[in-house]
Amino acid sequence: MKKFIHTPEGVRDTYGKECARKRVLERQIESLFHTYGYQHIETPSFEFFDVFGKEVGTVSSRNLYKFFDRDGNTLALRPDFTPSIARAASMYFSEETMPIRLCYQGSVFINNSSYQGRLKESTQMGVEFLNENSPEADAELVAMAVSVMRKANFQEFQVSIGHAGFFNALADEAGLSAEQRHELKELLIIKNRFGAQELVEKFRLKGNLARAIEKIPELIGDREMLEEAAKLASNPRALEALNRLKQIRELLEAYGCEKYVVFDLGMLSPYEYYTGIIFQAFTYGTGDAVIKGGRYDNLLARYGKAAPAVGFTTEVDALLGALERQHIGVDVEDTMTMVLYPARLEKLALRFAAAHREKGMDMACVRFEQGKMLEDYRLYGLRNQFGGIIYFRSENEVYALNLSTGQTEQVDMSPYLL
Amino acid sequence: MKKFIHTPEGVRDTYGKECARKRVLERQIESLFHTYGYQHIETPSFEFFDVFGKEVGTVSSRNLYKFFDRDGNTLALRPDFTPSIARAASMYFSEETMPIRLCYQGSVFINNSSYQGRLKESTQMGVEFLNENSPEADAELVAMAVSVMRKANFQEFQVSIGHAGFFNALADEAGLSAEQRHELKELLIIKNRFGAQELVEKFRLKGNLARAIEKIPELIGDREMLEEAAKLASNPRALEALNRLKQIRELLEAYGCEKYVVFDLGMLSPYEYYTGIIFQAFTYGTGDAVIKGGRYDNLLARYGKAAPAVGFTTEVDALLGALERQHIGVDVEDTMTMVLYPARLEKLALRFAAAHREKGMDMACVRFEQGKMLEDYRLYGLRNQFGGIIYFRSENEVYALNLSTGQTEQVDMSPYLL
Repeated sequence: MKKFIHTPEGVRDTYGKECARKRVLERQIESLFHTYGYQHIETPSFEFFDVFGKEVGTVSSRNLYKFFDRDGNTLALRPDFTPSIARAASMYFSEETMPIRLCYQGSVFINNSSYQGRLKESTQMGVEFLNENSPEADAELVAMAVSVMRKANFQEFQVSIGHAGFFNALADEAGLSAEQRHELKELLIIKNRFGAQELVEKFRLKGNLARAIEKIPELIGDREMLEEAAKLASNPRALEALNRLKQIRELLEAYGCEKYVVFDLGMLSPYEYYTGIIFQAFTYGTGDAVIKGGRYDNLLARYGKAAPAVGFTTEVDALLGALERQHIGVDVEDTMTMVLYPARLEKLALRFAAAHREKGMDMACVRFEQGKMLEDYRLYGLRNQFGGIIYFRSENEVYALNLSTGQTEQVDMSPYLL
Repeated sequence: MKKFIHTPEGVRDTYGKECARKRVLERQIESLFHTYGYQHIETPSFEFFDVFGKEVGTVSSRNLYKFFDRDGNTLALRPDFTPSIARAASMYFSEETMPIRLCYQGSVFINNSSYQGRLKESTQMGVEFLNENSPEADAELVAMAVSVMRKANFQEFQVSIGHAGFFNALADEAGLSAEQRHELKELLIIKNRFGAQELVEKFRLKGNLARAIEKIPELIGDREMLEEAAKLASNPRALEALNRLKQIRELLEAYGCEKYVVFDLGMLSPYEYYTGIIFQAFTYGTGDAVIKGGRYDNLLARYGKAAPAVGFTTEVDALLGALERQHIGVDVEDTMTMVLYPARLEKLALRFAAAHREKGMDMACVRFEQGKMLEDYRLYGLRNQFGGIIYFRSENEVYALNLSTGQTEQVDMSPYLL
């Protein structure tokens, strides 16, 4: 038996139909980003370790791929684009005060333990809107997240929107320590109401505040829920957060995408990273969110530019997986044509193919091997995503076989004969 | 003074116009690969260290970025795509015997000493033609290399073609040791005729053979040179190599690209990697070749599939650098439009932008800030590659300003008013 060398665990190859589908989806998302006025930025695959330091990212430094350069500096493969783009934008747009819209595409690397089953290298595509802290910027990003899901042809999906400020305001009012806050957040994230209630009881808060915090996991809904939450919380910063969500809700109507959106005040992040909205897109067929985003107004300052920012990232591999499990096709055309010729007609066939390439057609030249039959090439074409075969019998007898319909017609060769 | 965090030495960010140019060029090359019937494959950015082992690659293992996975295996960032694709193709196409045409795009990583001035992460795009050892396959790849250079709009460039078999046949005939062969090759590569002559004298070869070897650095030219070389070398394997080059020469005429090609029998590789043709594309404004390729019929067998292969890679960053130094533009259009509106017209502006996005237009919404003037936005547009501004004065007074011509015209708003 042959022994092949495999990829390391947690990373994989993509080829054939699957790769074609991935690329079509990526192009659709990219062109969507462009229609919203976002411009590409490319950053290196690795950075100085400090760029992904503890307070900055959402990936533990234990889960970074780390190595050394020749001068002994520690480098790390990016686990996430946001810190890199914040670093780059702080430098190149240090003087710009008007809106900066950037988009990116590439691999991220997380050295997680393999039993978690996630890919260790995966493709992300995302956007960052810098220099503006406004409901407009927030709403634009949420509308774009909805557009990504619609562009990918998902029929059933939901974008959940929370706000870091609501929980933080209540936790501040309650005077919780960092540790207490973290413990409480973890219970709320997994919607463990009883655990949260027990913990809140231990904190001995005044009745209204305790009730508001205990209610957080239930605060899921549309406008009415936001009104209800406003009655629960008298804290001005909590009200400010709710008001921001209301403004976003109104703007989303102008985008016509409010029906895909649900507000969820229990949508919290375990990291102290987000300062405003937090949002995620969910659909069937994947355990985790396929789009994750939020506002982080304190991040850029760490890299030298004090500027607000909101962004999201799309997990392209998870998105493709969900599409497949929901049996939603990606529009990949088998445009490639096989130009099949016997050796004696080689130059004519090469000229024929070259003329069609000039017109942008995809033409793979294949010489007919002695002992093979047309049927062999038909099967070869089918297993390699060819759309058709143009086969040369003689200078004047050239036929086009459509591999999906099985139909054959003669090709007029007069333009190609010398 | 602000302190920014820089990228590690040897890697860089790309954004704005430069990034747009790079992406346009990449799309041109990619579509060219498709017209020749090549299909995409993606492999992980890192592999088990062994995949890039000593005999396989053209990059010394000292220059690989190495790190460990959680099980203590050594991983390496790919310095080159060919070994990864050979590994992948050996597994996924183990039973396929007909032509396999694959193309790829992505980053490669070389941990070279910084004084060499090369990028440590750079973008490569290339093709691999597997399962066929024929002059047709060789010629197709050379023709594609010429097409890449022409597509990039280079006026002056050259593709040099050598053949590993010619030198190897003579070195075998001379009975040179691996060390002697290496020493001689190094002198020939740098076209050090005197050094080569001196070394050949030390080997005490018979007159004809010594003359043939000494002559190698001069064997540069077209058909006549190949005839001349055939007279110098009586060795059958050397003649076979020359005959292969003659067949390729004939096929290149059918592709109409013979005028860009020069045969150079002194084009040798320091590595024992190539088994047939070796070719490189050169132009002004870059020290090294921008396209490098050749035939390596023994490589795939290392990964479990004994199959011939020929391929090339395009150094995208070097190509862009050469274009810039030769003042050759890449056709980047500033298609992005700024939709500039005062707060009170926000919803109309958002609807207007959404309707244009549906038609595929690129629309960035910007709210007019109090205290700013249209001129501020004009300058902002110019420094961020906007093509124009559509500014809203009132529901019925909306103007389109073309940022390159400076001309303004009124926009008919009747379709957008509710």
